[in-house]
Amino acid sequence: MDSFDAAQPPDRFADDPAFAVHEGGKLVVRSTRSIDSIADLALTYTPGVARVSSAIAAEPELARRFTWAPRTVAVVSDGTAVLGLGDIGPAAALPVMEGKACLFSEFAGLSAIPVVLATTDVDRIVETVVAIAPSFGGINLEDISAPRCFEVEERLREALDIPVMHDDQHGTAIVVLAALRNAAKVVGRELGSLRVVVSGAGAAGVACTKILLEAGVADIAVADSRGVLHTGRQDLTPIKRWVAENTNRAGYAGTMAGALAGADVYLGLSGGSVPESAVASMAPNCIVFSLANPIPEVDPQMAAKYAAVVATGRSGEPNQINNVLAFPGVFRGAIDAGAKHITEEMKLAAATAIADVVGDDLRADYIVPSPLDRRVAEAVAAAVAACARQQHVTV
Amino acid sequence: MDSFDAAQPPDRFADDPAFAVHEGGKLVVRSTRSIDSIADLALTYTPGVARVSSAIAAEPELARRFTWAPRTVAVVSDGTAVLGLGDIGPAAALPVMEGKACLFSEFAGLSAIPVVLATTDVDRIVETVVAIAPSFGGINLEDISAPRCFEVEERLREALDIPVMHDDQHGTAIVVLAALRNAAKVVGRELGSLRVVVSGAGAAGVACTKILLEAGVADIAVADSRGVLHTGRQDLTPIKRWVAENTNRAGYAGTMAGALAGADVYLGLSGGSVPESAVASMAPNCIVFSLANPIPEVDPQMAAKYAAVVATGRSGEPNQINNVLAFPGVFRGAIDAGAKHITEEMKLAAATAIADVVGDDLRADYIVPSPLDRRVAEAVAAAVAACARQQHVTV
Repeated sequence: MDSFDAAQPPDRFADDPAFAVHEGGKLVVRSTRSIDSIADLALTYTPGVARVSSAIAAEPELARRFTWAPRTVAVVSDGTAVLGLGDIGPAAALPVMEGKACLFSEFAGLSAIPVVLATTDVDRIVETVVAIAPSFGGINLEDISAPRCFEVEERLREALDIPVMHDDQHGTAIVVLAALRNAAKVVGRELGSLRVVVSGAGAAGVACTKILLEAGVADIAVADSRGVLHTGRQDLTPIKRWVAENTNRAGYAGTMAGALAGADVYLGLSGGSVPESAVASMAPNCIVFSLANPIPEVDPQMAAKYAAVVATGRSGEPNQINNVLAFPGVFRGAIDAGAKHITEEMKLAAATAIADVVGDDLRADYIVPSPLDRRVAEAVAAAVAACARQQHVTV
Repeated sequence: MDSFDAAQPPDRFADDPAFAVHEGGKLVVRSTRSIDSIADLALTYTPGVARVSSAIAAEPELARRFTWAPRTVAVVSDGTAVLGLGDIGPAAALPVMEGKACLFSEFAGLSAIPVVLATTDVDRIVETVVAIAPSFGGINLEDISAPRCFEVEERLREALDIPVMHDDQHGTAIVVLAALRNAAKVVGRELGSLRVVVSGAGAAGVACTKILLEAGVADIAVADSRGVLHTGRQDLTPIKRWVAENTNRAGYAGTMAGALAGADVYLGLSGGSVPESAVASMAPNCIVFSLANPIPEVDPQMAAKYAAVVATGRSGEPNQINNVLAFPGVFRGAIDAGAKHITEEMKLAAATAIADVVGDDLRADYIVPSPLDRRVAEAVAAAVAACARQQHVTV
């Protein structure tokens, strides 16, 4: 009977609710005040707006009070490293950036604008973001592939006096540190006593390694697809060389799986899979964070046979390591304080704040708050803002 | 007694309601759907968003359906020619761009994003807008000084396949043509029979001249601060040379005031002031559009002594020539039709649609609808979309 409907073919996206959520896009820009009269129009636009513009021209710092820019974050991506999908380009990356903007709004009350770029050239990305920066109060870099992401972030941090953060690096690092702080408590260990193996030396792997070093973890081995990074390797990019020089004190030159023997922590940020024998070779009461999405490197059920604490990036499961615990509060706190930069200390403060929300409810299957926990962004923002003011990095 | 409040000085902006309207900015970005559950989060963001991004990567045209970009306009300015204030820079220009974005939302239901630029270099402006263009469905250029604005618009129109329009040129031109159509009716004249003097050869003056020529006005003299443009002048920029070659058939080489003798229409887009004797020298039943803001070139009360129809740019007065009558509907219509460009025909259709909203209510003091008339954007959008489809300039 359906053949009578041939002129209206069934919507091939009807079965997946994700498409219904994306119909027409996920964001909208609206006026904060309605325009119902000529008087409203004359205040919102000409001639009234001219008095506000003149005042800002005379005293530029008034822009913080009388424009939306200070509370607006650009979510910038060139679409080269989108989720697990890789280099899919700006148009296909846009739904992810819209989603990020939704989360900025929902969790931090900040306006955020997706800015997807028609270029993957580092110089052009930097020039473009510098050119549009007066429109924004912060720059969230997103899904830009390594190693270009390191240079883009570093150059933008130098060029701009508003917060700039590559979330794939630092958002992940902050939440991993928060989770590891609490996991260490669960197993009764100090961070400084843990032997950690990081699988993956891309954006997230490098940033997690840095923040763990800053937090006092002394023994870290970092592996890329060719094995553990050590100073004897001749195939290292500058950032991997830095990692090799600051980790792996034992100079271990084997595989990631080999490095796991006797290790306390596995931190998976790489995809692929880890053989059960390697997980079985870890130390007693070990910790497994297997964050590849949607398929973790270590099956969580298998991991539970050997590990005291297991975390993944999976939605709806216990101990979900989700960047949304970090970035809304980090930007909100930095912006509230008028911070010109997001410092290492501010990231460490954010991690501690996330861990502390768990408080006395800490258990092996509750080391981080739920991604929906509205207390988190508030706590992170307060901690980051306090740190910024203490460090005098504010305007 | 107020001295006791010395620790809290009175707010020096409290007396001007324009500042209250601008407190914290005039725009906000919000999610179109709330995020109340882990399921919501998993559809709006990972993992659900990955399916949408994958679909767009495979079929780029799906971005029109499943992202917000096609219904989002960038309002781009370098802050060099802001209202009557001149080159006040990007931060001070931002309230004007926010106001424009409010009007896009209020009158056309489009999201619009202010993008103020830290550069005034034509090459860098073009490169920047091209780089961010995948984020948007249209580019509204605003308050960029002449003659750079002509080159910026032309190069962006060539580089992009989304609507690009410099509103100071074409928004003004569309509304002026709509108003002149109706003013000519009031005085019982055909457009082709009118002798017009345009005062001002900047962005608005050039665009108004072009659209009047396209609409059939045959006798136009255009003046800059040095007098009427004619082909014998050696001081002309390329665009002014084009104007000189396509107007002023009589080769008049005198002043603007001199050209007014016997003219049917004065179109003031220049600032400054016109002596009463020059207005008095115009033809009987003449038309005076004096659009400088906030002080018209011709005092409207003085003009009324000589002219049958008077219009200004002033808020709250009859016959207000306000771009808000054009740009929301023009972009909405172009976007609805999936137009790759805004053509001359689409602008002419927009002007006719604006004029037609006045309909049978036409009077000497009601030649254009009120800027608040909600019928206008709808009528303009329908006319522009129909024209785009007829011209086959759609995606």
